[in-house]
Amino acid sequence: MKLALAQINPTVGDFAGNTRLIRDFAARAQSDARSADLVIFPELCICGYPPADLLEKSSFLARAEQSLHDLAASTADGPALLVGAALPAAPSKEEPSGKHARNIAALLSGGRIAFTQQKMLLPFYDIFDEQRYFEPAARQTLTLLNNCPLAITVCEDAWNDKGFWPHRLYSIDPVEELMRQWATLPDPVAREPRLILNISASPYSAGKRDLRRQMLAAIARSHRAFVVMVNQVGGNDSLVFDGSSLVLSPSGGVLAHAASFEEDLVHFDLAAAAEEYRAHAGRSSVSFAVDKSPAPRPVLEVPYDPALDLDAVYSALVLGTRDYVRKCGFSKAIVALSGGIDSALVAAIAVEALGHQNVLGLGMPSEFSSTGSIDDARTLAENLGIRFEQIAIHGIFTQYQAALAPLFAGTPFGLAEENLQPRIRGALLMAVSNKFGALVLTTGNKSEMSTGYCTLYGDMVGALAVIGDVFKTRVYALARHVNRDREIIPENTIAKPPSAELRPGQLDTDSLPPYDILDPILEAYVERYRSAEEILAELTAHPPVRHSSSVPNRAVNGKPATKEEAAEHPTEQGSHFHPISLDLIGRVLSLVERAEYKRQQAAPILKITRKSFGTGRRFPIAVKVEL
Amino acid sequence: MKLALAQINPTVGDFAGNTRLIRDFAARAQSDARSADLVIFPELCICGYPPADLLEKSSFLARAEQSLHDLAASTADGPALLVGAALPAAPSKEEPSGKHARNIAALLSGGRIAFTQQKMLLPFYDIFDEQRYFEPAARQTLTLLNNCPLAITVCEDAWNDKGFWPHRLYSIDPVEELMRQWATLPDPVAREPRLILNISASPYSAGKRDLRRQMLAAIARSHRAFVVMVNQVGGNDSLVFDGSSLVLSPSGGVLAHAASFEEDLVHFDLAAAAEEYRAHAGRSSVSFAVDKSPAPRPVLEVPYDPALDLDAVYSALVLGTRDYVRKCGFSKAIVALSGGIDSALVAAIAVEALGHQNVLGLGMPSEFSSTGSIDDARTLAENLGIRFEQIAIHGIFTQYQAALAPLFAGTPFGLAEENLQPRIRGALLMAVSNKFGALVLTTGNKSEMSTGYCTLYGDMVGALAVIGDVFKTRVYALARHVNRDREIIPENTIAKPPSAELRPGQLDTDSLPPYDILDPILEAYVERYRSAEEILAELTAHPPVRHSSSVPNRAVNGKPATKEEAAEHPTEQGSHFHPISLDLIGRVLSLVERAEYKRQQAAPILKITRKSFGTGRRFPIAVKVEL
Repeated sequence: MKLALAQINPTVGDFAGNTRLIRDFAARAQSDARSADLVIFPELCICGYPPADLLEKSSFLARAEQSLHDLAASTADGPALLVGAALPAAPSKEEPSGKHARNIAALLSGGRIAFTQQKMLLPFYDIFDEQRYFEPAARQTLTLLNNCPLAITVCEDAWNDKGFWPHRLYSIDPVEELMRQWATLPDPVAREPRLILNISASPYSAGKRDLRRQMLAAIARSHRAFVVMVNQVGGNDSLVFDGSSLVLSPSGGVLAHAASFEEDLVHFDLAAAAEEYRAHAGRSSVSFAVDKSPAPRPVLEVPYDPALDLDAVYSALVLGTRDYVRKCGFSKAIVALSGGIDSALVAAIAVEALGHQNVLGLGMPSEFSSTGSIDDARTLAENLGIRFEQIAIHGIFTQYQAALAPLFAGTPFGLAEENLQPRIRGALLMAVSNKFGALVLTTGNKSEMSTGYCTLYGDMVGALAVIGDVFKTRVYALARHVNRDREIIPENTIAKPPSAELRPGQLDTDSLPPYDILDPILEAYVERYRSAEEILAELTAHPPVRHSSSVPNRAVNGKPATKEEAAEHPTEQGSHFHPISLDLIGRVLSLVERAEYKRQQAAPILKITRKSFGTGRRFPIAVKVEL
Repeated sequence: MKLALAQINPTVGDFAGNTRLIRDFAARAQSDARSADLVIFPELCICGYPPADLLEKSSFLARAEQSLHDLAASTADGPALLVGAALPAAPSKEEPSGKHARNIAALLSGGRIAFTQQKMLLPFYDIFDEQRYFEPAARQTLTLLNNCPLAITVCEDAWNDKGFWPHRLYSIDPVEELMRQWATLPDPVAREPRLILNISASPYSAGKRDLRRQMLAAIARSHRAFVVMVNQVGGNDSLVFDGSSLVLSPSGGVLAHAASFEEDLVHFDLAAAAEEYRAHAGRSSVSFAVDKSPAPRPVLEVPYDPALDLDAVYSALVLGTRDYVRKCGFSKAIVALSGGIDSALVAAIAVEALGHQNVLGLGMPSEFSSTGSIDDARTLAENLGIRFEQIAIHGIFTQYQAALAPLFAGTPFGLAEENLQPRIRGALLMAVSNKFGALVLTTGNKSEMSTGYCTLYGDMVGALAVIGDVFKTRVYALARHVNRDREIIPENTIAKPPSAELRPGQLDTDSLPPYDILDPILEAYVERYRSAEEILAELTAHPPVRHSSSVPNRAVNGKPATKEEAAEHPTEQGSHFHPISLDLIGRVLSLVERAEYKRQQAAPILKITRKSFGTGRRFPIAVKVEL
């Protein structure tokens, strides 16, 4: 049997468009000289993933069901298709579940739905709410296509292998059940090697591709099975799906793989591979060598590494930005250029996502902006080839202060006045957005979002927070990545100490510990829910190091500090924060807690870590948190 | 046995404060002449409900467990307590669930935890995510206190009665299981009448109190049991818990009840009531008369009624506002007063919640504000006894336009310029908030939030959207309610046609159908997910009527239109919208879809309907929705 892996980029809710895309890929898979017998598509590809509460609308589920039937009928003459689809839940008076839908893999062949396998394991953690919507499958069943047995699983169904996970999330393993049935097949030829198909919508986070491959390799090895995983690609709101579909041999080696972060169609001749496997069984060969990659380490485990999976993180941000803008029906974007590194990185990503002709850079200097900053912004725009406009905010700022003077009489210049400046910029950005129909891209990073070092309705304004899941240290690493071939982000932007420039001589380190210390604390607290004591223990065991992409600070006048300076003398770096201590950690954690109200009004954030601010992290605001 | 229902208002995460509150109520219940044997508290009262992802922190669960043990020890000398608590999940290698916690009712007696009953039915719909956190109970067990059997249930466990619900959400009924065990009790005296205890955190929505009482009455009758339900009271973020705890007789009548929307301690002598019940069994009496209240109608079923449960809605908004401000650590609030009805209602609620001395009204007129509007705002402030300040925005607006002139050259005054005005007001509000430490209360209503007739970072600015779940027609009904004794909201504010006053002569009906027509469409689509065709059928069957609290519009110059005018000649009401048609409905629904991006950046909205914008309504943004 010849397989084709159709790694497509569907849009949520676009039944007509997604069905067209599926038919196009099916036609390509057939027209090719390697004409496929079965074309495999991602989970829920007809409606797109994640549809969220659209699944609670009966009209949506009716449309989903109709689209599946229409697709079966309209592809009767082509190869068989394995597609992911949502269907209305099967109503039952005896066993009510309260769920509206089923998440199924449907085998379409000869114009009809030949077989369906319902998803059994429904993820309920982080961004996943599948137990809100779907009835779980009651059983797993093998099916046959052209007399060839198929074990069909949907995404999470393959994520519960007891040999791989130290802690399992479910008591049942659908793969194990299917393989048990396989072992009882009457025809001994069909029994070996086995075949596990997995249709997925598995979102990206740094390190996830490795984890996914190693997890599937463990299954392939333990069940002596070929594993074919087809994953959705593309951005849908906060989530970026990387694709990275693959075929693994029964020994765990990669036999075929699709691209990451773009659509792809990959052919795989299963019959030939099985033949070769039988011939080589027990002996080593290139394709069937046992996978010797190191045992999987849990994603993003300590120590925090800003350079983890850097290429992929950058690609995820580009794809997430492109798809959000496009799927919202826009083509253009605006980025506020301050001369700082965050906005520079976002502008670079925007240009790669949308093209330089579709990006407008807007400089909005105040009396506290240095000449250097304005020059850096202009240089960046020139390097990127984007249009650059400038609007000074001084006049507006003065007018606000005059209007507020009677109310504010006798009070000193403070936070209220500081925050007015980003809010003026926010209003200008939105005016330009409203006038010219371009989306504003928000430039705040995860260190700021964590600590509340950002202004609600000010620099938080925008349609999409491109780097809201990127800690500042990773921003620096990504900036170096952008500049890997030539200087796009001005070296001066990278080298100067970070500043919000809201009052004279202000530096981030006036209010926050140096980022090389701050970020590991935040990563442990925000992403892994460690307590202050646990964080202190972690940072003592793995002291933060200054990477090549480290954040400059005042003490070293723009030159990177040495590892010793950072680790041993943080107080000398212009910060009033002491060396890492329970007290310092406690103060950082309390900043995180106090900023929850800001985050709940933030723009959607592209998720690139395993725990991003947004729908996967749900904390109350009006609470008392004992740290 | 003497019971006390301790209806308390805990703060999420405040273990020390909540435990103190529990001890205080326990002491009061004992010191009273009617000295209670058992004091019953709400679900999860030690940590407060809903703790959300705090339940994923092991430090939080450890603190929760410790607090329960401490509470048991420190109340050893008092009456027995039944309290709701979160505990870490019981780890099991064989049956992993991936859940972190258990939601239990704990019976504390003699200084120890005498019994625990884990929650079995875990709600997963709307705002509930309990299947994300909790392991369900494997079994239900009766327990004994002073030789008296108790059937203990936690909230949702009592919400699956097959005689009451036309569609059940779960296949098991914990109450039924407990009553089955009760029937096998050896002592025939203990067998009758039965007793069901239910500890709850059941949030308010309009009509919910009736539904809850009728549902519990159905259980009481069908199981011939006394039912004691103790519900949390207070606001926690978007949710308002009404309390309304009650005791029902085996014939479904209310024997005792606690206040709604405030803390309360209610005594109930079960032994005396049981005695009376046995004496009267089979005969009618006042207390034990069969409940003859009409069969429950599903909450908020058609036709949409803006006056439903009006008193309670108002009380919910007051309590929700008071608790949000207080539990965030603030005492003061700012309301932008435009002279319109939305801001007037919010100011009235704020004064009732926080006291007139803690509310600042801020008028920010523009060149498009009518003199009447400014006068109305000032009159309102006088009627409420609040401080009123005024800042004209004209100078700032002019400055913005000048700054943008080079970029906007040759373009007409439009949406970009209109939106600048609310954004200036938003920035001023936040400056005053930052300066004086008072929370901004957002004044947008649900009709605006639904259709996007509001400005992101403009009038949407604020810490809490007080009436974001209140349709405009209900805003009018509530305004009449506020004025029931004397004119607080100026009659002129109520009588004039609604306008955003962002351009000369603008009226809401320029962009939207009259609210009497708009709101029933929105209610059906936003709250009940009806399709356009279904909405047309509903509105044909139940034509929108103009209530006494109807919304004035241009055609009638401030005087209420007759029912006939509204139903038959909507085009004559100054709107370019046609009479109710599929086309009009379709245009309204597409407004709702297009505004999703705004709602996801909105302030938390106090929930007073069964489907509010916020965490209980999860829709993607970058989608294609086929209406």
